[in-house]
Amino acid sequence: MATRKMLTDAEASPEARAVFDDIRAKRKTDFVNNAWRALAHDPETLKATWEKAQRVMGPGTLDPLTKELVYLAVSISNKCEYCIHSHTAFAKAKGLTETQYNEFLRVIALANELNATMTAIGTPVDEVFKA
Amino acid sequence: MATRKMLTDAEASPEARAVFDDIRAKRKTDFVNNAWRALAHDPETLKATWEKAQRVMGPGTLDPLTKELVYLAVSISNKCEYCIHSHTAFAKAKGLTETQYNEFLRVIALANELNATMTAIGTPVDEVFKA
Amino acid sequence: MATRKMLTDAEASPEARAVFDDIRAKRKTDFVNNAWRALAHDPETLKATWEKAQRVMGPGTLDPLTKELVYLAVSISNKCEYCIHSHTAFAKAKGLTETQYNEFLRVIALANELNATMTAIGTPVDEVFKA
Amino acid sequence: MATRKMLTDAEASPEARAVFDDIRAKRKTDFVNNAWRALAHDPETLKATWEKAQRVMGPGTLDPLTKELVYLAVSISNKCEYCIHSHTAFAKAKGLTETQYNEFLRVIALANELNATMTAIGTPVDEVFKA
Amino acid sequence: MATRKMLTDAEASPEARAVFDDIRAKRKTDFVNNAWRALAHDPETLKATWEKAQRVMGPGTLDPLTKELVYLAVSISNKCEYCIHSHTAFAKAKGLTETQYNEFLRVIALANELNATMTAIGTPVDEVFKA
Amino acid sequence: MATRKMLTDAEASPEARAVFDDIRAKRKTDFVNNAWRALAHDPETLKATWEKAQRVMGPGTLDPLTKELVYLAVSISNKCEYCIHSHTAFAKAKGLTETQYNEFLRVIALANELNATMTAIGTPVDEVFKA
Repeated sequence: MATRKMLTDAEASPEARAVFDDIRAKRKTDFVNNAWRALAHDPETLKATWEKAQRVMGPGTLDPLTKELVYLAVSISNKCEYCIHSHTAFAKAKGLTETQYNEFLRVIALANELNATMTAIGTPVDEVFKA
Repeated sequence: MATRKMLTDAEASPEARAVFDDIRAKRKTDFVNNAWRALAHDPETLKATWEKAQRVMGPGTLDPLTKELVYLAVSISNKCEYCIHSHTAFAKAKGLTETQYNEFLRVIALANELNATMTAIGTPVDEVFKA
Repeated sequence: MATRKMLTDAEASPEARAVFDDIRAKRKTDFVNNAWRALAHDPETLKATWEKAQRVMGPGTLDPLTKELVYLAVSISNKCEYCIHSHTAFAKAKGLTETQYNEFLRVIALANELNATMTAIGTPVDEVFKA
Repeated sequence: MATRKMLTDAEASPEARAVFDDIRAKRKTDFVNNAWRALAHDPETLKATWEKAQRVMGPGTLDPLTKELVYLAVSISNKCEYCIHSHTAFAKAKGLTETQYNEFLRVIALANELNATMTAIGTPVDEVFKA
Repeated sequence: MATRKMLTDAEASPEARAVFDDIRAKRKTDFVNNAWRALAHDPETLKATWEKAQRVMGPGTLDPLTKELVYLAVSISNKCEYCIHSHTAFAKAKGLTETQYNEFLRVIALANELNATMTAIGTPVDEVFKA
Repeated sequence: MATRKMLTDAEASPEARAVFDDIRAKRKTDFVNNAWRALAHDPETLKATWEKAQRVMGPGTLDPLTKELVYLAVSISNKCEYCIHSHTAFAKAKGLTETQYNEFLRVIALANELNATMTAIGTPVDEVFKA
């Protein structure tokens, strides 16, 4: 259920289609997922987002799987159904095992439990934790 | 600003003080941070939480720094001021460098930007992403 | 998927039906959307909400489209699927163009990106911004 | 209370200081607010953010005050204290009157009230609202 | 740190002062807390809110303490610092004991833990739970 | 739509099936809802969660219906579709009447409305509300 049509290749502008083609080339697959088809209504944003995503999520001083899990943790917290499903799949594609996923879910559960409790009590930040 | 007093060692029950002592022993420090002093009003919850935290955040198939970053990502999303400050400090203590923290913040920013856009559009989950 | 039945005209109480009729008259349409059918289980709340909605969302010193976009921005942030879809439609009915919607989505994305970053860092509010 | 120092001009890198100078020139003021000093730890992100902010928040088919109110609505929903205070000030600087601010707050209140009620009931989206 | 001044009795309009006086009379105290002083910039909203609050939070088929705990649970989830502190105090004034508060915090923690886990997995709603 | 399969009895490990059997025995029903089938991928978490849920949600100094409404209030705030539907059903099973549910929804609506307003204004916490 969407507020906009997911654009097919035929419906996308040449600028948007060029991004679709770059996604296909870089990912070595013919499949372009809905996130990009949703963004294609605004080709400039589509292009900027695709370039930023490659830059931010690619290898760096943090490994790609760690980045993927951070992204997924945010997506779960933001209750973004699309993002939860796509980034769980991406994490598995980057090597996340079933056991690691179980551990990840335990961290998510613990953080949410304690975040809520600390917020409820209004626990003051210890001096040693301040910059 | 808190809804409860942070309990000092003198104010805590013997059960709570035993947990404080275990924290000191395991962490090899005399310092007990406010999270535990806030929980000390309910010694049973204090004990269960301390035991669970060690189990969940300790080494496993995910390394402790990755777990810490996932915890921090959730805490930022939940806007828990206490948790953001304490777990940023814990991540640094576990080796997070300035460059890695910059990369982490870029992932947080990207995820929030795209989570909101996907939610706004109601992008339907692609079939390939479903279990 | 709902926790309550959307009440048809036949199922609604006379008090609720009177509100349905007023909605039809004011909007010059026979269609009563589910928001009102969901509220009809509590006719007093239904009536108060319909009156408040007209008062708050109608013309004032802010124009109706601006109000609609503010409402939509909140609904996206609150991840309310019903509200996102209905108020995107309402905004279009009040004249929102495709180009304006693209601009709106860019503001939503930027705000979410920077909100998260500022919260992560705990940026202190500048003195000049305080009342 | 921050996880990072707000960088002064002397502490910022030449790349970051160049952005500070551009902010000063464009805004015709000597004052650089903390948002930019917080981002200055990552000069590349600082520069990209400043450029994006000008592009997104500047005049377009939506007027700057409407954009500012959308940004503020998101910031309130995300409970970002820094962003609430700075963007309330920016909205006033762009002409928001006291009466308009009152109207804005009424829309915020109504949207939150109804978002929560619709989510609680799980009201199904009407067919007419789907793209 | 506020975006508006909390209005003193002298600064408030006659309409707002009349509400302050009614609050004092009904609560049998001279003290008017900041929530009302913040709302006093919009006397019509102030009056409507005070009347609604009495109607909604007063005795009904749910007892006032249960309502207060529901209100507090929402406030914690919404990370509203003002609301958490005031409604924790109101709950205590309505008889909440230390032991009940501990039990309440355990429910809050459990709900947050499981909400996050169910959202992460996207657990489908069982047919028997649908209206 | 889930990231994991809901495990049937045949697919669950002996440890997980033992929890399913205990759920059936304690609840005097053959039905095991999806929450437990989702958790069954991690039998240790499944067992710990089931034991904690009984301990936390059972009778204490707060009655079970009050706990259920607090749990539901959190679930609505966290927009957890599964949790909203299951705990609305649980609350009804524990005696929640239609009139009580209407009152509950009014408290939810009021709290969300005022939480947002107080956060928007940044209302400072009154001294009397601090611990």
